[in-house]
Amino acid sequence: MLRLQHIAKTGEKMSTPALQPLKHENKPATDSLAAAMQALKLMLGDRYSVSESVRLVHGKGEAWHAPQLPDCVCFPESTDEVSRIVKICAEHRIPVIPFGVGTSLEGHTIAPLGGVSIDLGRMNQVLQVHPADMDCRVQAGVTRKQLNQAIRDTGLFFPIDPGADATLGGMTATRASGTNAVRYGTMKDNVMSLTLVNAAGEIVQTGGRAKKSSAGYDLTRLMVGSEGTLGVITEIGLRLHGMPEAMMAAVATFPDLGSAVATVMDTIQVGLPIARIELVDRDTVQAINSYSKTDYPVRDTLFLEFHGSERYVEEQVELFVELAGSHGGSDLEWARHEEDRNNLWQARHDAYLAILAKYPGTQGFTTDVCVPISNLAEIIEFIKAVLVDSSLEGHILGHAGDGNFHIVFCIDPEISAQVDEVYRVNDLLIDKALEMEGTCTGEHGIGFGKLKYMRREHGDEAIAMMQAVKKGLDPDNIMNPGKTVTA
Amino acid sequence: MLRLQHIAKTGEKMSTPALQPLKHENKPATDSLAAAMQALKLMLGDRYSVSESVRLVHGKGEAWHAPQLPDCVCFPESTDEVSRIVKICAEHRIPVIPFGVGTSLEGHTIAPLGGVSIDLGRMNQVLQVHPADMDCRVQAGVTRKQLNQAIRDTGLFFPIDPGADATLGGMTATRASGTNAVRYGTMKDNVMSLTLVNAAGEIVQTGGRAKKSSAGYDLTRLMVGSEGTLGVITEIGLRLHGMPEAMMAAVATFPDLGSAVATVMDTIQVGLPIARIELVDRDTVQAINSYSKTDYPVRDTLFLEFHGSERYVEEQVELFVELAGSHGGSDLEWARHEEDRNNLWQARHDAYLAILAKYPGTQGFTTDVCVPISNLAEIIEFIKAVLVDSSLEGHILGHAGDGNFHIVFCIDPEISAQVDEVYRVNDLLIDKALEMEGTCTGEHGIGFGKLKYMRREHGDEAIAMMQAVKKGLDPDNIMNPGKTVTA
Repeated sequence: MLRLQHIAKTGEKMSTPALQPLKHENKPATDSLAAAMQALKLMLGDRYSVSESVRLVHGKGEAWHAPQLPDCVCFPESTDEVSRIVKICAEHRIPVIPFGVGTSLEGHTIAPLGGVSIDLGRMNQVLQVHPADMDCRVQAGVTRKQLNQAIRDTGLFFPIDPGADATLGGMTATRASGTNAVRYGTMKDNVMSLTLVNAAGEIVQTGGRAKKSSAGYDLTRLMVGSEGTLGVITEIGLRLHGMPEAMMAAVATFPDLGSAVATVMDTIQVGLPIARIELVDRDTVQAINSYSKTDYPVRDTLFLEFHGSERYVEEQVELFVELAGSHGGSDLEWARHEEDRNNLWQARHDAYLAILAKYPGTQGFTTDVCVPISNLAEIIEFIKAVLVDSSLEGHILGHAGDGNFHIVFCIDPEISAQVDEVYRVNDLLIDKALEMEGTCTGEHGIGFGKLKYMRREHGDEAIAMMQAVKKGLDPDNIMNPGKTVTA
Repeated sequence: MLRLQHIAKTGEKMSTPALQPLKHENKPATDSLAAAMQALKLMLGDRYSVSESVRLVHGKGEAWHAPQLPDCVCFPESTDEVSRIVKICAEHRIPVIPFGVGTSLEGHTIAPLGGVSIDLGRMNQVLQVHPADMDCRVQAGVTRKQLNQAIRDTGLFFPIDPGADATLGGMTATRASGTNAVRYGTMKDNVMSLTLVNAAGEIVQTGGRAKKSSAGYDLTRLMVGSEGTLGVITEIGLRLHGMPEAMMAAVATFPDLGSAVATVMDTIQVGLPIARIELVDRDTVQAINSYSKTDYPVRDTLFLEFHGSERYVEEQVELFVELAGSHGGSDLEWARHEEDRNNLWQARHDAYLAILAKYPGTQGFTTDVCVPISNLAEIIEFIKAVLVDSSLEGHILGHAGDGNFHIVFCIDPEISAQVDEVYRVNDLLIDKALEMEGTCTGEHGIGFGKLKYMRREHGDEAIAMMQAVKKGLDPDNIMNPGKTVTA
């Protein structure tokens, strides 16, 4: 607690806009808030909390943004309860902030205007599984690992894997993706339908179970990525995929980042349907070895996975080996068995923690640009040149097959020079990505942390269009205010 | 002309709501209209027309809905011109109806309130092709065949194939799909970005060229399927796909529809990545043979296509033959060479015309439900039982791999008993599909013809949400009014 209070306090002195507390002019009047809180307490009993420690957990994400606490936290157990909570908030015009397990990296769950955090963690039932149609329906608080455990015996799996064991509600709300997206798409491609509670507290069903539909506006896709600003997602219909007959994971190392990236580009361009192709630079490999007690060669590396029938995986592997070889790839290490594959991917997923462990006492700041694949080598070279002249040390890793990569910086948010520098570098990176018709965020979302890039990326007209949608669906701006799209 | 006027006249007597002319209470005042038309004429010169024959072409689609003519037709050549046209219409509150090549089946292009038809046919430039990133950018008037011709030398192709050589603008606006969707998805999955002109006449860019993004609301997906009711789409960024090394088409026949459907379900459920799997019932095969001078065995049939490497196609074919065999599939006829494949698919695509040719003087009415694949056999059995007791003869064909199929009825729209019966049967079919969590339209869209099913499919709350979006983006209801979502 002490440490966090300290950050919040020193945060006021900082020069970077995204770190300053939002102005609280729009905060609801104290008596409205008190009335709403009274009604919620009455409704939920011990599933309502104003404890500071509970509010703190809900007023921050995994990244370094200074926590901003909600006034209370509710723990509903059904869509109907969420509806009743939002109705109370709507009546009193109190902010509503949905919360999954708090793995957000862009401050989606912080409460700049206070209000009510709705923790969906108790809504964790897998409601339906339809093996023959390869789909399922879950409550928003189910995590991706929990879902995969629940459907283990069906021969199906849910592929989207952002690393963290996030809730499917949170993944839907942020349009998450991760290592498998190169083959299986993002949440945009795998959410079929939703139950949501709108800003008036009404329960809305979107989509259905047909594989396709041309019946009106795609409300499901509008909600995917809306980050709680258009409604609270309470149930999700998801597409599942057949567990491949064979899976082969591998690690391949390269003389330099450029060769690794060239291999990624070739792999995509020949249409090899690779399931995962992850770029990890040599410094990050070193951090992984140290953190995960592995002994990968300390070189620029690709972590790979191939899915298909036995014969087809073999064919893909042959083709990949040829492509990698032509760019100096070597040290190919193969993992066929589930345990070996899991170890390999756990090491890759722990890269963020491994990097943080190198710099004790710091917090992570992660960039997230995504560009057309033909620009990937150029933008990585560009940012490496920027970093040569910077005081920052960056670790590069990411979902290279989609043109999406992260640079992880470990900084002390109390040192404003470090904060300023990290923003300067990220600004340059994002400008370059936008120049290449890319995006400031491939998968982490906008939340609070990337708000200032929205207009630069989309232009005034598209922002006005988003604002009109927001205004139409949440006229009193109570749904996760201050995030994604602001007035 | 005579015939069409006659239909419009007799239409007034008919009992079915969708056939009655819309009430014209909301028609713009005559002087506003005259002022707008004067301004448009001045702006466009001979690219502006009030000729009745031109207006008639633009006031109808390919289906049987009685034509309703716009007051004039504009032929812009740039997004900027579309913007200027819409600004004039916005100023005078005149309806704006976008038009591609008029292959719509649900009356999307008719003008129930009159107004200005914007024909995008002259905006037919392929603007950019990026082979390395497998994407391109086209003007809205480019047709799918034109695009595939233009990119022939790149080794890439655009897969979405609704049969008709529709414009990519129209396909985007209706969220079209077709025979390849089972493998390559629908327009929802293949549109990356858009340029559109909004209801105020402003030019808006949505999306970018990155393979994924989590930056704010997915305006691109909101526009896909919005049928001209939220803006005029003028440019489209599209994902392309690598031309497979090998393609194999085939025809397989079955003892009955149930066996063919069971084969489709097995194929999808084992995860065979089939590129096309089209169901055609025996009566339709007979019609095709007669129309296209082919000699397919007159049995319930699947038209198939496999894509991949040589070895992988071989593996898929082996697996399929095994599955089909277990359901009595036989007479497998293979087409490997491009010309043979093209002939096979041309015959399949001409099925609609072949059926119409069987009943001279009639017009086609096509159903379009889509259900979860495990329900496909049941709903086809259900509707066949309904048809046993009906005066109608229906031909069944469709994209069975997606759970989407059509029944084509050939009717004389002047005989109200036939019209009533076709609606009665479609109502039963749609109720059944919705009971199965399916949709009233897998790919043809809502337009004007399926408006009455929207509330039944989505419920009051989702319709209210669509209305709020429509109101927010088109407050004066000038964009294709009376379609998709009405107030």
